[in-house]
Amino acid sequence: MSRTPDTWILTADSPSLLGTVDVVTRYLFEQQCYVTEHHSFDDRLAQRFFIRVEFRTPAGFDEASFREGLAERVEPFQMKTELTPAGYRSKVVIMVSKADHCLNDLLYRQRIGQLPMDVVAVISNHPDLEPLARWHGIPYHHFALDPNDKGAQEAKVWQVIEESGAELVILARYMQVLSPELCRKLDGWAINIHHSLLPGFKGAKPYHQAYQKGVKLVGATAHYINNDLDEGPIIAQGVEPVDHAHYPEDLIAKGRDVECLTLAKAVGFHIERRVFLNANRTVVL
Amino acid sequence: MSRTPDTWILTADSPSLLGTVDVVTRYLFEQQCYVTEHHSFDDRLAQRFFIRVEFRTPAGFDEASFREGLAERVEPFQMKTELTPAGYRSKVVIMVSKADHCLNDLLYRQRIGQLPMDVVAVISNHPDLEPLARWHGIPYHHFALDPNDKGAQEAKVWQVIEESGAELVILARYMQVLSPELCRKLDGWAINIHHSLLPGFKGAKPYHQAYQKGVKLVGATAHYINNDLDEGPIIAQGVEPVDHAHYPEDLIAKGRDVECLTLAKAVGFHIERRVFLNANRTVVL
Amino acid sequence: MSRTPDTWILTADSPSLLGTVDVVTRYLFEQQCYVTEHHSFDDRLAQRFFIRVEFRTPAGFDEASFREGLAERVEPFQMKTELTPAGYRSKVVIMVSKADHCLNDLLYRQRIGQLPMDVVAVISNHPDLEPLARWHGIPYHHFALDPNDKGAQEAKVWQVIEESGAELVILARYMQVLSPELCRKLDGWAINIHHSLLPGFKGAKPYHQAYQKGVKLVGATAHYINNDLDEGPIIAQGVEPVDHAHYPEDLIAKGRDVECLTLAKAVGFHIERRVFLNANRTVVL
Amino acid sequence: MSRTPDTWILTADSPSLLGTVDVVTRYLFEQQCYVTEHHSFDDRLAQRFFIRVEFRTPAGFDEASFREGLAERVEPFQMKTELTPAGYRSKVVIMVSKADHCLNDLLYRQRIGQLPMDVVAVISNHPDLEPLARWHGIPYHHFALDPNDKGAQEAKVWQVIEESGAELVILARYMQVLSPELCRKLDGWAINIHHSLLPGFKGAKPYHQAYQKGVKLVGATAHYINNDLDEGPIIAQGVEPVDHAHYPEDLIAKGRDVECLTLAKAVGFHIERRVFLNANRTVVL
Repeated sequence: MSRTPDTWILTADSPSLLGTVDVVTRYLFEQQCYVTEHHSFDDRLAQRFFIRVEFRTPAGFDEASFREGLAERVEPFQMKTELTPAGYRSKVVIMVSKADHCLNDLLYRQRIGQLPMDVVAVISNHPDLEPLARWHGIPYHHFALDPNDKGAQEAKVWQVIEESGAELVILARYMQVLSPELCRKLDGWAINIHHSLLPGFKGAKPYHQAYQKGVKLVGATAHYINNDLDEGPIIAQGVEPVDHAHYPEDLIAKGRDVECLTLAKAVGFHIERRVFLNANRTVVL
Repeated sequence: MSRTPDTWILTADSPSLLGTVDVVTRYLFEQQCYVTEHHSFDDRLAQRFFIRVEFRTPAGFDEASFREGLAERVEPFQMKTELTPAGYRSKVVIMVSKADHCLNDLLYRQRIGQLPMDVVAVISNHPDLEPLARWHGIPYHHFALDPNDKGAQEAKVWQVIEESGAELVILARYMQVLSPELCRKLDGWAINIHHSLLPGFKGAKPYHQAYQKGVKLVGATAHYINNDLDEGPIIAQGVEPVDHAHYPEDLIAKGRDVECLTLAKAVGFHIERRVFLNANRTVVL
Repeated sequence: MSRTPDTWILTADSPSLLGTVDVVTRYLFEQQCYVTEHHSFDDRLAQRFFIRVEFRTPAGFDEASFREGLAERVEPFQMKTELTPAGYRSKVVIMVSKADHCLNDLLYRQRIGQLPMDVVAVISNHPDLEPLARWHGIPYHHFALDPNDKGAQEAKVWQVIEESGAELVILARYMQVLSPELCRKLDGWAINIHHSLLPGFKGAKPYHQAYQKGVKLVGATAHYINNDLDEGPIIAQGVEPVDHAHYPEDLIAKGRDVECLTLAKAVGFHIERRVFLNANRTVVL
Repeated sequence: MSRTPDTWILTADSPSLLGTVDVVTRYLFEQQCYVTEHHSFDDRLAQRFFIRVEFRTPAGFDEASFREGLAERVEPFQMKTELTPAGYRSKVVIMVSKADHCLNDLLYRQRIGQLPMDVVAVISNHPDLEPLARWHGIPYHHFALDPNDKGAQEAKVWQVIEESGAELVILARYMQVLSPELCRKLDGWAINIHHSLLPGFKGAKPYHQAYQKGVKLVGATAHYINNDLDEGPIIAQGVEPVDHAHYPEDLIAKGRDVECLTLAKAVGFHIERRVFLNANRTVVL
């Protein structure tokens, strides 16, 4: 799992076809690349193929010519490939409101290198979490919401995301519904944490809903956002036992840990190129 | 947790009132009963009090006079009490269809004494599981369903339950919806296992629903039945991680263990007098 | 679980005797105290009784006279009692070395009120974690270790603990063995987190030991310190699945979360007066 | 995970060498085999390579010529290969003593097809579990132990194993220490379930040891047997939370479920050709 510095990650997906594995592994061999971990999965219902390979590159590895040769080879398979050095640090924008447990957790994991990412901006509709971001040396953008013109705020949000060069947007308990337009722009590269085991308890106040139902487990769901609120493809879910003695405020407190862990897990999977979109589901290799 | 043979269990619930704990513990002390475990909980939102005490009885303990004295004492508190010797074996009827994993598990736990119960009958709308019941020496009643007269079948089911003297009915993957009338009769003493984390995936084919949604956890819910399908008070829930490689039939296979464990847990709680109804929720002490 | 501001916690333990529960609950009733949660356990092998009660006090509750009356009542039972207002914040000293995951986690939980404690000092044998402590406004004491005179450093450590009025010392990955003398002083009120499932992998480098053995689970153990290294009474344990792809450095990374969660759980139990010493074991009510 | 009937499984391991993946995948492609799942791992500390591929065979697939061609290709890599049709049922011998929970669980999983195996014999040093084996139609061999001549009993055990053509021996709570000689014969193809989280609590009465230590988790370990008692390579481990109220007999009862689940998981991994020996550790793909 830990990697030598010369390690790269190659991921790809394509329609199911004979030869998809071979075209990748043969090319790697010809390029003298040494495979350290390989995982591929062919979804026989969706008729779609997914592959993730970690490999060590030979001395004098030339990225540009490797990419060129690869593109040529996989072209007949309509294969979408991605190539990433293992030490690569993704640029990330985090969006928050007032609750800071997920932000605190993500920034800590960045700081100690457990999540190899550079948080380039924190955006919020509230000023509260600025000190936390500042302490980590990260620019904080407070864009208050004008209820009469939500579009204006979203325009500013989008500008920061765009100018930051972010490759991933994390909604770390951002308590506003995004417009369909922004959802469309973020499709497939924005991860939200919802504080319930979706599809149970969609929408507002899931812990209060959970209390009403008297459930014995609460959970959290990290998913890509799409146009449907709380309906995007699920990446990771976590769960925590609770009992009758948990009032709604206790469920909220109890749920914080599982929200942090589930979101961090999903972000780690995404950054390590483990997650593939497969219609409204995900494949995690 | 394991108990000496002279141990009894006293449970009670009542409206929240000053003195509810004292009236119970003082009486136990006066009767020379030695408390080994005591758990009480007062629900400040529902304004309701719940208590469960395990105690060892003195030599010459007289059940009848104990009950009489207790009834007198708790009368001002509108307290509903239940008194059970720890070695008591509940009479149980199990209802099944074709899947036998829960039945097999429950009968095994009865056989080795892990669930202190006597299964007095197995009822099914199919003949398939008769050999399993017979091997355990338990009468098996096959009542086929007449789609044009479901009432006739239910009448036979109810007759067996009634004549058996059952104190608990377990729906161990019984794949028929009970009529409102039978639900009413079984209210509070029939436990169903539903193969999803309720309230997610109610109704039919929950594993297929789970597959469609691409969830990363499947689960099971043991609950008391009431009039609302899959909506009765939840006693226990369990969960199992799954991934993209689980097709619907794999989810079904994977879910069996958690169904068995969750149902057995709920049945154990019920038999040990740990479960209290609290409107549409349960308190488990 | 969440409490109204007038809630107090009463805990006690004593030899097993008829009347231990009654003497507590009767007194509470007479003082017009309303019990909201009560848990008692009598250990039949150790012949020892443990009780924890949460109760709401009446208007005009007088702590001093309550304590006086209680002491008188329980005296015949050789009962050791403790009385704490639910809103009480324990004074805590945290000891660390270089790894900051547990410190970061504990300070975060203090900051948002999830752990009702006041961290009055952080002590370390290294200067590294000073910025983190400072950001939370907590004094940081760096006492470097002189290998030729460990006693001198421990003397300084003890002075800070003593002068701070700390009621709890947390060894949050403090990587030094304490002297028997300091262990004796901290007996029963210092919690250590060990990064293995004790008694497996005692001593140094437990994750490397775990790797060598090829275990499929790693874990963490929070325990009171005593004279025997890694042998004190266990309060909480947690576990995390791992596989062949986890090299030792991956186990270390993977273990951080479970160390944080297990330590925070144990500290919460201690602060909420849930933990009782029972020879070399604990009772957690 | 579920498979079409034309699916085969190819596994192999070898020293780490450039080309190990390619030699396998290229051959599969040339043979028109369609890869549905592929997982390979290269252990950079042990310098050893492991691969497991599931693939669908083309119409007219000829096993013999496939094997021959494969052997030729992988020869330069010192690769040990294994080829198994997905529907293959392993022949299994189960050894037991008096506790039947693991046996009951394994036979149930065989019966419903969750474990694709044929249990060809149950061997015991006690007569107790014969009815259970008989009900499943499996020959039961009772070989009582002569304390003065353990070798005589082991000779009979070995004869049954050998004549049955078993490919896997399961020690499902067989409470006798095997001789070094028998261990050697069973090296790598006999799975034992030990009722603790090894390496904690080796040897006899692990639950009593766990009670003495006051642990908050009990567990089970499924491992290949080797010459060192309770020291063979670990395949799977499971865990269950416990508390102060669990006396030793409660730990024994509580541990049954996790023993069953952990053993069944390990057996499933073995049968599905997921487990590779890697010195004293295992790789599970």
